[in-house]
Amino acid sequence: MNQTIILQSRPQGTPKLENFKIIEEKKPEPGSGEVLLQAKYISVDPYLRGRMRDEESYIPPFKVGEPIDSMVIAEVISSNNPNFKEGEFVSGMLQWKQFQISNGAGLNKIDEQRAPLTAYLGVLGLTGLTAYIALDKIGKLKSGETLVVSGAAGAVGSVAGQIGKINGCRVIGIAGSDEKIKKIKDDFGFDGGINYKSTSNMKKALAEKCSDGIDVYYDNVGGEILDAVMQNINDFARIINCGAISLYNKEEMPTGPRLEGILIKKSALMQGFLVRNHVKDFGPAINQLGTWLKEGKLKYDETIIKGFENTPQAFLDLFDGKNTGKMIVEV
Amino acid sequence: MNQTIILQSRPQGTPKLENFKIIEEKKPEPGSGEVLLQAKYISVDPYLRGRMRDEESYIPPFKVGEPIDSMVIAEVISSNNPNFKEGEFVSGMLQWKQFQISNGAGLNKIDEQRAPLTAYLGVLGLTGLTAYIALDKIGKLKSGETLVVSGAAGAVGSVAGQIGKINGCRVIGIAGSDEKIKKIKDDFGFDGGINYKSTSNMKKALAEKCSDGIDVYYDNVGGEILDAVMQNINDFARIINCGAISLYNKEEMPTGPRLEGILIKKSALMQGFLVRNHVKDFGPAINQLGTWLKEGKLKYDETIIKGFENTPQAFLDLFDGKNTGKMIVEV
Repeated sequence: MNQTIILQSRPQGTPKLENFKIIEEKKPEPGSGEVLLQAKYISVDPYLRGRMRDEESYIPPFKVGEPIDSMVIAEVISSNNPNFKEGEFVSGMLQWKQFQISNGAGLNKIDEQRAPLTAYLGVLGLTGLTAYIALDKIGKLKSGETLVVSGAAGAVGSVAGQIGKINGCRVIGIAGSDEKIKKIKDDFGFDGGINYKSTSNMKKALAEKCSDGIDVYYDNVGGEILDAVMQNINDFARIINCGAISLYNKEEMPTGPRLEGILIKKSALMQGFLVRNHVKDFGPAINQLGTWLKEGKLKYDETIIKGFENTPQAFLDLFDGKNTGKMIVEV
Repeated sequence: MNQTIILQSRPQGTPKLENFKIIEEKKPEPGSGEVLLQAKYISVDPYLRGRMRDEESYIPPFKVGEPIDSMVIAEVISSNNPNFKEGEFVSGMLQWKQFQISNGAGLNKIDEQRAPLTAYLGVLGLTGLTAYIALDKIGKLKSGETLVVSGAAGAVGSVAGQIGKINGCRVIGIAGSDEKIKKIKDDFGFDGGINYKSTSNMKKALAEKCSDGIDVYYDNVGGEILDAVMQNINDFARIINCGAISLYNKEEMPTGPRLEGILIKKSALMQGFLVRNHVKDFGPAINQLGTWLKEGKLKYDETIIKGFENTPQAFLDLFDGKNTGKMIVEV
């Protein structure tokens, strides 16, 4: 049989297990030009929460009663498509199914010799690309500048911080536990970190850790941490709005301090970043990230949850910060 | 004698006449290398409100008991400086005094043959430069795009809108009276306008006037009008944060909807702009603006208040929107 995870109902606020349902389907048969894929690793990501809303966004919303999809590493089990051979591994936006059919469109072959399969969902996948391209296009790091990264122990944040170090920046990370702060310093080479959960005055804590002010902020969380950063930015600061996980589960439009006055006073820039708008830059970016990986300049971390049926829980755990690095389900 | 306007006390909230005081001084005598200047036209500008606060900003704050300064057009009355001749006109950051001494530093000679003297405080001065350079560096207008300008009948806004038309954009202005809306359409060639004071739902009004969405927003006001614009922006929109007059008189940090979610969803950019950071671009910008002015492609409007002693009231009137175009005091 073939387990499939569907969106059972749209979440109100924080998603719950009951919003998902596992159903059993028949294992499909590939037709002419098609391949049969078996999912090996499934990426669960905060942005999927947005697709669970019934509203226009940059990717179409999921439909109630239909399967969720996300980035998946799959093995070609059988192939009627000359471009793919049995036993090859591919990545692509695939459904949360144990087995599925593809005509090959949108699949990328991946090389297990270059890096482990799961790296292609993280440091060499969308999360690594998100960190690299956003810093390249918006951050424009200069040696000696101070980079602050929120969600610093996460898949994007940990790569962003390491790229900061490679570029000669002082890098301070923000994360939600002392364990994560220890990890970003010991494993990823950050110069310092702030546990926002145990810090009452983030503005002051940032001022202390960033005595020369903040030049670039890689923001994965939005909300009050962004506000605190804004009160410490330097002239010509660049704020990369890459994620706003603190807002994703809110039903009402959240309010906060108006930032336009600070932007003017500091001649600062805030820019939203979606990696999907930069597909043409993926090739060179993967090459650079792959080179750093081989040189040992780039490390990565992943949290691997075993069992296809645990995919919804792994997704929910993202919002409790239970992952360190890329959250992946091993099917 | 020599009238001088000093900051008598720091305003709390909206400035009042009592925050200023006119004192009498002796007319100064120029020393070696110095010139005696007589003020002809004084520029009053919203940003001066910020300098009345006792806080670090991009320009040092005014001191209580000392003269205000702003851009002034002055005539050289007598000169001990070989670079300046009696009867020449100059512009510069000068004090609110009828007569003052300068060593020539920071003074720019201006050519009355090219354009009327007051144009050098407006369309060929900092306001025209602010409109031109911000659109050039941040707005990056493309033909066929929709540009929205707030404070559209103001000195910066009216030039920004006309530059939009010169670049082939559809231009919608926001201003605070039907008279101003008529003016931006009839005199400055805007395609349409919205009187925000008589409009209850700005989000809807903008959606109606900008049926293809908003690509570039030239923001002189901040606050709720910015919020309404943000709900109508297109992918890759550019928001120029040039002014936030709606916030300047607030004592508390104003709050509003958090914008980081929209910035991400739309891959949009917000960037603060201070013309003082672009001094090296002034020359080419004045040439371009001067050419458009001569070609009749650029019109400007000014509100001239007569009498040196009326300078504080002219400044206060800015916050009631009593000016159309550049607010200038004729000494």
